[in-house]
Amino acid sequence: MRHLIDIKDLSIEEINALISVAKDIIQNKEKYQRKCQGKKLATLFYEPSTRTRLSFEAAMIELGGNVLGFSSSNSSSAQKGESVGDTVRVVGGYADIIAMRHPKEGAALVAAMKSEVPIINAGDGGHNHPTQTLTDLLTIQCEKGRLSNLTIGICGDLKFGRTVHSLITAMSRYKNIKFVLISPEELKIPDYIKKDILEKNNIEYLETNSLEEYMDKLDILYMTRVQRERFFNEEDYIRLKDYYILNKEKLISAKKDLCIMHPLPRVNEIATEVDDDPRAAYFKQAKYGKYIRMALILNLLEEKHVQKYHPELPEKLVNVIKCKNPRCITSIEQELPHICVLADKENKIYRCKYCEEKIDKGE
Amino acid sequence: MRHLIDIKDLSIEEINALISVAKDIIQNKEKYQRKCQGKKLATLFYEPSTRTRLSFEAAMIELGGNVLGFSSSNSSSAQKGESVGDTVRVVGGYADIIAMRHPKEGAALVAAMKSEVPIINAGDGGHNHPTQTLTDLLTIQCEKGRLSNLTIGICGDLKFGRTVHSLITAMSRYKNIKFVLISPEELKIPDYIKKDILEKNNIEYLETNSLEEYMDKLDILYMTRVQRERFFNEEDYIRLKDYYILNKEKLISAKKDLCIMHPLPRVNEIATEVDDDPRAAYFKQAKYGKYIRMALILNLLEEKHVQKYHPELPEKLVNVIKCKNPRCITSIEQELPHICVLADKENKIYRCKYCEEKIDKGE
Amino acid sequence: MRHLIDIKDLSIEEINALISVAKDIIQNKEKYQRKCQGKKLATLFYEPSTRTRLSFEAAMIELGGNVLGFSSSNSSSAQKGESVGDTVRVVGGYADIIAMRHPKEGAALVAAMKSEVPIINAGDGGHNHPTQTLTDLLTIQCEKGRLSNLTIGICGDLKFGRTVHSLITAMSRYKNIKFVLISPEELKIPDYIKKDILEKNNIEYLETNSLEEYMDKLDILYMTRVQRERFFNEEDYIRLKDYYILNKEKLISAKKDLCIMHPLPRVNEIATEVDDDPRAAYFKQAKYGKYIRMALILNLLEEKHVQKYHPELPEKLVNVIKCKNPRCITSIEQELPHICVLADKENKIYRCKYCEEKIDKGE
Repeated sequence: MRHLIDIKDLSIEEINALISVAKDIIQNKEKYQRKCQGKKLATLFYEPSTRTRLSFEAAMIELGGNVLGFSSSNSSSAQKGESVGDTVRVVGGYADIIAMRHPKEGAALVAAMKSEVPIINAGDGGHNHPTQTLTDLLTIQCEKGRLSNLTIGICGDLKFGRTVHSLITAMSRYKNIKFVLISPEELKIPDYIKKDILEKNNIEYLETNSLEEYMDKLDILYMTRVQRERFFNEEDYIRLKDYYILNKEKLISAKKDLCIMHPLPRVNEIATEVDDDPRAAYFKQAKYGKYIRMALILNLLEEKHVQKYHPELPEKLVNVIKCKNPRCITSIEQELPHICVLADKENKIYRCKYCEEKIDKGE
Repeated sequence: MRHLIDIKDLSIEEINALISVAKDIIQNKEKYQRKCQGKKLATLFYEPSTRTRLSFEAAMIELGGNVLGFSSSNSSSAQKGESVGDTVRVVGGYADIIAMRHPKEGAALVAAMKSEVPIINAGDGGHNHPTQTLTDLLTIQCEKGRLSNLTIGICGDLKFGRTVHSLITAMSRYKNIKFVLISPEELKIPDYIKKDILEKNNIEYLETNSLEEYMDKLDILYMTRVQRERFFNEEDYIRLKDYYILNKEKLISAKKDLCIMHPLPRVNEIATEVDDDPRAAYFKQAKYGKYIRMALILNLLEEKHVQKYHPELPEKLVNVIKCKNPRCITSIEQELPHICVLADKENKIYRCKYCEEKIDKGE
Repeated sequence: MRHLIDIKDLSIEEINALISVAKDIIQNKEKYQRKCQGKKLATLFYEPSTRTRLSFEAAMIELGGNVLGFSSSNSSSAQKGESVGDTVRVVGGYADIIAMRHPKEGAALVAAMKSEVPIINAGDGGHNHPTQTLTDLLTIQCEKGRLSNLTIGICGDLKFGRTVHSLITAMSRYKNIKFVLISPEELKIPDYIKKDILEKNNIEYLETNSLEEYMDKLDILYMTRVQRERFFNEEDYIRLKDYYILNKEKLISAKKDLCIMHPLPRVNEIATEVDDDPRAAYFKQAKYGKYIRMALILNLLEEKHVQKYHPELPEKLVNVIKCKNPRCITSIEQELPHICVLADKENKIYRCKYCEEKIDKGE
């Protein structure tokens, strides 16, 4: 491993190794407090994200390293039109490792293709956010003592929520996992997740629009936000919004050792009265995020072999078809080659290498 | 002590202890340069304030600690609507102590009620700014050698200037203090400060609209800014503005050992020709701000007992009457309980717990 | 030396000494990693510049020091109207050395006149940027092994590009330097550079509008950007813009050991296909920037004698004539004295002390 762009870059063994280092850090902090002495982390945040940025910075500082960077694009040279690739080549002369957040999908991959130091994707638009998924896995491991034999409820916007898709993908690799997928009709999990992940791996799952119906079965309840703008009309939004707010009443039938998670920031989808419930794990989850990032930084800095990022590709097309996704990094950086990757041989589906959007091959 | 929200949280003994540590730091810097090794300060500045933020950061660095945070709300998750309480619970997982500045009154108190690490109020709107008052006290102690037996002139906007109100409140606890209160008619000190602080403590004071009249009597001259927007009409502003600008001429009758202070930033209320006068202490004052913050950080981090903030309250009302102050944190965070505290038993006056605004109990 | 405001503040011996320290740092990093322990650098960036700011921060961290500051004026007190002089006097209480970038010409000089700690000019508008020039010199020394006997091509906007003017001025002090000045007719080097620098020092130079014509002669090719807004009409811009884009084809006749430089950020004036050419030195150049800043910080902090900045002036006029340059710091800070310096005795030319603009003495 050299970079972490997509949680799929990591094998289950690599994930388990990271979790195991993170657990050791939690128990033996002193052992790690000089591990990164003399090393520098650059946090290049083209859009603000306090939680993620501060957790990376705290992680590096607790390893004895230093931090530099920017926290929004208007305090950076991005305004002057510099490409992501140029920025990381320059910053690679100032720092030993880079954590990047960018509003465009594929930006972190572009960075990894140019960078001479490891890149960690700290979120590229709504696309990938692998350290959030690692955080979720460490939380489950620490709070439940295991990553297998779990019934996991996931509630909220299951259609657009990429955090949720990554979590389902990651947990599907472990044994005896069941999912309860809780959402309004309009925000149900997409078919490709059902087919390509759940059914392909023989994972048991239920769909429901009730937060309470299967509450008593859950080992984990992962809450997410239902955004107003996802609804087709105001009426539906008003009808449904309270329905997915977790409060004490809805927890009555829940297990004593339920673990309630949320990627944060929360707006009002969990009532504050739940915060002091011992089952509420979402603030601890934020703290686990720091520990897994410490493990990740250590791992990436310890890698001996320096090589640019060339993910193993199946058949690909370069500069034949352009990606039309307006959120893709190729929409703002003109010099990037347009690369399509054959993602599904049977159905001849190509996807953009950067944002993974399905390519429309035209008429 | 666990948090510092309001200068009134500190007893005179606690203030003296902080001043005494600050003086020791000034004389023995080396002794303190590793005291906070491995500790982290988070500076959560929801509105910019270079001086205050940098002085906190310098303080923590000179104690051997590290700093992380944000310097304006547009580079933070506040944009995403996260509550102050959630933010400090999360950041408490990344840092050992938090200095917070927020545009809404009571925000720091809300933070202290939720936080698991010490909160220092670095300014909540125009409400409290206790480290400014501590800075003023350390400056007086170091420059004059005492906190008693002083005639203190305070010039400028005495009506709205909270810095001034805090300073008067704090100094009123020391022996043989006299005040000369210098302001235009429209910006005189409010009656409640006269009655509740000055008269109650038998403090001698004079009111004047002339900066020069009592100049020869002053041991300290504390200048503040007169803001254009405070005047009822442009005419008054133009007539008065130069009248309160301190220059060499107005200092002719002043004592040789006068100490000229200003909380900064200054706009033009002290002419730059005064800067090189040995009596000008305002730049030194900024430096004293660093030392008192070092003492404060040390003190708060050394406290052994971790407990949430529950200031001792007299009778209170919860969710009975809403605070109507538009600057109060309750105006933007809907889930906060509305708490009224009986501030004055005799006159049955309730005040909002967060912003201390008098509660209008309606008809 | 106490401050670095203008590259002309440094003698050739001082420049050579800085380069020599920088080279020693490159070879013996460990020797320097605690040199600035306990010291603090403040980066006061009134306008964003990622590259410059991060390279200063990385420099200080690699010397074992700490960093604080702000990265844009909207996260600073500048919004509140504080003068540059006041800000540096305050920050001088928090930091041991200050690197400042400001949009107004002369701002760094004003800072140096007030500051009690060393000021490094990290760019004052389009005026001076001495650490860029030092970076260029270190790059040439390291990549070519010498600062003399060189043919240097400079391509792009030679009329307004101050980076270019500084480089020509600095290189003109070394032996046997030849320049090939490549630009469209409209953006040719100004006459005063030709007369006052090149001809006065008997430097051989050629002017051409072709990037390829003398390519085979060059030891160094320094590319800069041609900005659209510099052209009188769109037609000229479109006709010329590709003409000055360096690509592989244009490099066919170039020397094997050509060194291609660019101050960055690049927009598209060098095709990305050139990036992997071993002659491309522009990313290395950014890294050299870190090392020369390390040498500079060390040098300024080691100076024993603390004195305010009083550059030796020839005859000067104070508050007689006002500078009318709208980009000059005197245009926004009213209290500054207007100082004119007799820059050219023979022709009786006065220049503003801050921005060096020629003073129009009126009718």
